[in-house]
Amino acid sequence: MKTTQYEGNQTFSIKNKEIQPPKHGEVRIKVAFCGVCGTDVHIYHGMMDKRVDIPLTIGHEMSGIIDAIGEGVEEFSTGDKVVVRPLDNRGEKPSDKGYSHICKDLKFIGIDSPGAMQQYWNVPDFTLHKLPADTDLKLASLVEPLSVACHDVRMAGLKEGEQVVVLGGGPIGLLVALVARDKGANVFISEVNQTRVQFARGLGFTVINPNESDLVGFIDEKTHGYMADVVFEVAGVQPALDVMTAVAGIRGRIVMVAIHGQPKEVNLFQFFWKELQLIGARVYEKEDYEEAIALITANKLPFESIITAVEPLENIQKVFENIDKNPDGMKVILDCQS
Amino acid sequence: MKTTQYEGNQTFSIKNKEIQPPKHGEVRIKVAFCGVCGTDVHIYHGMMDKRVDIPLTIGHEMSGIIDAIGEGVEEFSTGDKVVVRPLDNRGEKPSDKGYSHICKDLKFIGIDSPGAMQQYWNVPDFTLHKLPADTDLKLASLVEPLSVACHDVRMAGLKEGEQVVVLGGGPIGLLVALVARDKGANVFISEVNQTRVQFARGLGFTVINPNESDLVGFIDEKTHGYMADVVFEVAGVQPALDVMTAVAGIRGRIVMVAIHGQPKEVNLFQFFWKELQLIGARVYEKEDYEEAIALITANKLPFESIITAVEPLENIQKVFENIDKNPDGMKVILDCQS
Repeated sequence: MKTTQYEGNQTFSIKNKEIQPPKHGEVRIKVAFCGVCGTDVHIYHGMMDKRVDIPLTIGHEMSGIIDAIGEGVEEFSTGDKVVVRPLDNRGEKPSDKGYSHICKDLKFIGIDSPGAMQQYWNVPDFTLHKLPADTDLKLASLVEPLSVACHDVRMAGLKEGEQVVVLGGGPIGLLVALVARDKGANVFISEVNQTRVQFARGLGFTVINPNESDLVGFIDEKTHGYMADVVFEVAGVQPALDVMTAVAGIRGRIVMVAIHGQPKEVNLFQFFWKELQLIGARVYEKEDYEEAIALITANKLPFESIITAVEPLENIQKVFENIDKNPDGMKVILDCQS
Repeated sequence: MKTTQYEGNQTFSIKNKEIQPPKHGEVRIKVAFCGVCGTDVHIYHGMMDKRVDIPLTIGHEMSGIIDAIGEGVEEFSTGDKVVVRPLDNRGEKPSDKGYSHICKDLKFIGIDSPGAMQQYWNVPDFTLHKLPADTDLKLASLVEPLSVACHDVRMAGLKEGEQVVVLGGGPIGLLVALVARDKGANVFISEVNQTRVQFARGLGFTVINPNESDLVGFIDEKTHGYMADVVFEVAGVQPALDVMTAVAGIRGRIVMVAIHGQPKEVNLFQFFWKELQLIGARVYEKEDYEEAIALITANKLPFESIITAVEPLENIQKVFENIDKNPDGMKVILDCQS
């Protein structure tokens, strides 16, 4: 089978490997599609070389069909369409308080162990979610990032009719915006990349470029002074942190989706003054996957348009190079079927 | 009657003024005691000269007896023992979403209008809470700061058996610790002032001086790796912000009680990684006052010991000067009765 490996130094190799039989409690998946996540790009840039065991097959935004079943696997059969929730919580302890998905010794499959950017992939059965037989496997590769969005929106406790500001209109920001709008929220997106601004407008969103307009004044006017009930910080930059406390109304909830590697300046006075809440949100839980699968199989959101390129697996090197050259794109998917 | 006035330039004057009849909807209170709040000390230091209309009678941590009733006041009578919830929300708008206590145009009585550091004080009746006839009026002057603590603990959603770390063992920190312990939490206090460390230990708390011991390691050991379920940031300094995300366990809640006037560095990665929550908490609501009054009248917490000095009203200048000279003290109360 064809497999890809991150070799360090912004380089992927393509190898031929023996297909392995699944071990006890595992299944072997014939991978259909695997999306490129921002984290994969971070790995490609060498930002996670300390964590990643090079050479490593990466990738976790996948869909596929079960090809072989290991001993002890009872709930799945060959031919089942599946997605993988790539969280290995076998190191969970009582001090994790039942929050398996963020347990202290969590291993993220595709970062801390081999991932899906290959033709066949062996994974433990507890990571699997079965898809309906008629599921479009290309769209199903969006289940993982869509589950992030479902988790973020659930952690926000979003209610119908609430005013939402999404800071950052990249793939996750857009998915958060789509899920929030689907729940009946009135969604504004703040984005500085003009191509992404146009893209989000094409999906029917009100989008503000804060480098061109006064975001806080705009939200104030459009919400008649109520400001945002919920803010999603998906941009990961200081200007987003500066504005998140300003666009939030009294008792507003700010969901921290972005990964800020270094301590950053936050206006804590506004947290005190308006009794704001900051809610950290990371990955997803089982119910978020179930919600995302229901959304994908219903296909009522414009998922197709978020996939801006589908490339064969063997083009992996070019795909990552192009993501760097073209920051305007949305979701790029690798076709692992041939 | 005797009244005191903040005159700017770290100076209080004492004046004789005519007692005024209460207006429609107001009562006149014969003030019994008035505690000195950290905010009063800020005013004395000139930090709030832009907000305060000098000369001004300040003070809001009070108790007293109704002395005269204005027209239209129906629920109160002369002779009633009362405390004042010093929040004037008459400028409340729909965009405040019903959160009267932090409405955008909130006026804080005793800062934005005359306060209680005088012998008689006229206030609107909607600010009043009636006390049982046998209430100790000296202890009742703690109702206001105790309500802050009740609000903070309520905003935390604190549950019995939870592990709590209070950062800062001053008057508010101690009251938070006492209320949290009363609700069945296991409370640790972090404090750098050695006199306050001893004081809190005297109240039976486990107190760590983070300048002398490893606070995070201590909490890790004592909680067997569970870390804090709830952290109260009452210190208002950068080292407390640095440690608050480290002592919090998975899905820990951090209540922001301190007032940070400037943007400060916060480890947002920990919010993401452990799905922490930051909860801003400001002043109190009606139910917090009711809870504080019940605690004071039951007198089952060591409130007496928190009052470290009672001074006659006319000593106001000396009282504020001494607070600067002696940062070890806890709550200082002005006796306004003679």
